[in-house]
Amino acid sequence: MIITANNPSLKSWITVSENNDFPIQNIPFGVFLTKENVITIGSRIGDYAIDLSALQQLGYFKGIDLHEDIFLQDTLNEFITLGKPVWRMVRNRIADIFEENNSELRDNEDHRKNVLFPVDEVEMQLPVFIGDYTDFYSSKEHATNVGTMFRDPANALFPNWLHLPVGYHGRSSTIVPSGVAVHRPLGQTLPKGETQPVFGPSQRVDFELETAFITTDANKMGERIAVENAEDHIFGMVLLNDWSARDVQTWEYVPLGPFLAKNFASSISCWIVTMDALEPFRCESPKQEDPKPLPYLQQNGKHAFDINLQVAITPDNGTENIICNSNLKYMYWTMSQQLAHHAVNGCQINAGDLLGSGTISGPTKDSFGSMLELTWAGQNPLEMNDGTKRTFIQDNDTVIMRGYCKNDQVRIGFGEVSSKLLPAIPFEK
Amino acid sequence: MIITANNPSLKSWITVSENNDFPIQNIPFGVFLTKENVITIGSRIGDYAIDLSALQQLGYFKGIDLHEDIFLQDTLNEFITLGKPVWRMVRNRIADIFEENNSELRDNEDHRKNVLFPVDEVEMQLPVFIGDYTDFYSSKEHATNVGTMFRDPANALFPNWLHLPVGYHGRSSTIVPSGVAVHRPLGQTLPKGETQPVFGPSQRVDFELETAFITTDANKMGERIAVENAEDHIFGMVLLNDWSARDVQTWEYVPLGPFLAKNFASSISCWIVTMDALEPFRCESPKQEDPKPLPYLQQNGKHAFDINLQVAITPDNGTENIICNSNLKYMYWTMSQQLAHHAVNGCQINAGDLLGSGTISGPTKDSFGSMLELTWAGQNPLEMNDGTKRTFIQDNDTVIMRGYCKNDQVRIGFGEVSSKLLPAIPFEK
Repeated sequence: MIITANNPSLKSWITVSENNDFPIQNIPFGVFLTKENVITIGSRIGDYAIDLSALQQLGYFKGIDLHEDIFLQDTLNEFITLGKPVWRMVRNRIADIFEENNSELRDNEDHRKNVLFPVDEVEMQLPVFIGDYTDFYSSKEHATNVGTMFRDPANALFPNWLHLPVGYHGRSSTIVPSGVAVHRPLGQTLPKGETQPVFGPSQRVDFELETAFITTDANKMGERIAVENAEDHIFGMVLLNDWSARDVQTWEYVPLGPFLAKNFASSISCWIVTMDALEPFRCESPKQEDPKPLPYLQQNGKHAFDINLQVAITPDNGTENIICNSNLKYMYWTMSQQLAHHAVNGCQINAGDLLGSGTISGPTKDSFGSMLELTWAGQNPLEMNDGTKRTFIQDNDTVIMRGYCKNDQVRIGFGEVSSKLLPAIPFEK
Repeated sequence: MIITANNPSLKSWITVSENNDFPIQNIPFGVFLTKENVITIGSRIGDYAIDLSALQQLGYFKGIDLHEDIFLQDTLNEFITLGKPVWRMVRNRIADIFEENNSELRDNEDHRKNVLFPVDEVEMQLPVFIGDYTDFYSSKEHATNVGTMFRDPANALFPNWLHLPVGYHGRSSTIVPSGVAVHRPLGQTLPKGETQPVFGPSQRVDFELETAFITTDANKMGERIAVENAEDHIFGMVLLNDWSARDVQTWEYVPLGPFLAKNFASSISCWIVTMDALEPFRCESPKQEDPKPLPYLQQNGKHAFDINLQVAITPDNGTENIICNSNLKYMYWTMSQQLAHHAVNGCQINAGDLLGSGTISGPTKDSFGSMLELTWAGQNPLEMNDGTKRTFIQDNDTVIMRGYCKNDQVRIGFGEVSSKLLPAIPFEK
């Protein structure tokens, strides 16, 4: 099937400014609440949100086999189960409707009023119901930094790391969309040099710069997913801030992994950018020669994606400080390898599962994807442009992550995931 | 509110044999499919499944404020959100309907035909949609056994173990009800003395004898649950076999915990026994004096439950071998402590979440809750009554777990969780 929405010469009758993440070649999917309190699945071009259920009711998807309420939903899960051919047809059709020479909607003011809303006037929701959330640990630079800081610089990576994409299960119930503020968590920590833990607000709240992908129904329990086919089961991607309480983590994580240090909140961007839209930005992933992975993880061709990633902190009443510029292409294990590994034991993957990359750090100090690495465990504070310093995130700081791809023809972006860290809720005992 | 269903002198007009797990004092909740392909929420007395949606349609719940389809559902989640006062009213009313002197249903043959089915003639389903699954590691004997085997007998417990109920997130998508067979998983393992991993069927598939509890909506994100109130948010309990691939686990679990070693399958029993039914079996939990837990985990009174647990293996075409007798009362951390800890950082707990105890081992060798411990990592094979030996679970073995409480007046049980281990599905690469 042809991905006509990707044609770089396509222009929309909606004005899209040069550095906007959402040209007509993007056509992401999300869920929003209108001013009239209607929840709908939508898309976006430039600074306009597109009500897809309204478009459907007005007959714009005639000819595509969709049941009549497919977009009048509060999650994308059911649409996602329809599979890649349908996602592609719908995305192409949306591009067609908004193409500058198509007058169907452009010249119908009544229809436009029902379909288009300035993005400021809608309230973005979590785009999927997330059944299971898995987080990987697939950036070699990140794993090396952490291993160097806490263990042994000469053996920073554990023996399994180069053989498999290390991953673990996270908590679905606390995944929130961009814009939802998060409270500093309380927890047990072990003060330096002490043997008895103490209880109180975490003193080391950190972000983790990640991307995540959303799957469709991919296999039945007991069945595998071949690495060659894995990409067919990926609907699209979002940005992910995997909030972490480092001091809680250090005390609790042995031997079963992080738990309360992570499950108080994870924030995602609201527009799911499809793999079709990201297709022009495929690139080589890091070489996997020494060691070669086992056959079920071997793949040929380009399976990484060149996505620029950025983190900024905005202090309360302050201005923005860009503190990290990284790129998803640094990730050692590809998304298709992560998915094939996840299902190699027969683990069932469902529509709406979220699989995070793990912290994406690049090779240079300004490309590290967490405060832990940027300040080297707090040793080298970052100076903000208001003169204050940060080792970890302070109360009322807002953490903003952005991501976009760009070539000489088109820019495809994710918008942002932005969330404010509120003070801990006071506790009695 | 009075829990009349617990009255030990109650008798039902349905005959219940002496060692049956489901006397009129139990009244568990489950979901089943009838021969006519209707899915309904149900209960059970003796060897009869009770169709609660039929009972409701026939007017038997008049006077209890329930919406008309509350039992005509394929999961208990919505019923669970109604909260403890409603669970209790419904359970008491069911006991009332089936009490030997109550003729309403007893003498109405037409109604009985619509309401009662021999348990052999219904197909039990997963009773809840499980949003998030957490597994703890709360048996001191189990943690000590594992620490002794793999690390240092003198320091078998990690420093955090006595200060907090260690837990981690599991996979919801592969939790299956009793009766569903499970395939031996494939995975990476590191052969002894080697440095390069190999790929193939796990050679060390194990069970873990656990119980698990199911919660209702308990808090909003950011809020805590006080340990004193935690039990109000627990709907009931099931038996849990947390299948584990020990060789996969050993290789993959550092540093983020078990992943593919666990997420291929977890099996639960089908009838949720309410905390009200278990009330007569409260008992003291192990003393927590050295160290005392932090204040948010301190509790007074009896918060453990005296539940006998048993594991058996039935080889293919063979007879049953009982290999373990344990008891939930040995668990060091109580369910209320687990729940209070889980939410102390503001992690949101939802209706239908499943929280596992971790392997329940007792103090004696025949009370260890896994093959890993029973055979001491394979050193001491168990002999089956057909003369064959087991270090771990073999293909086509069926693992059966049972649980019941008993005092001199009543026996309340869970039935069983039984699942057969099928051979690995052959793989190509």
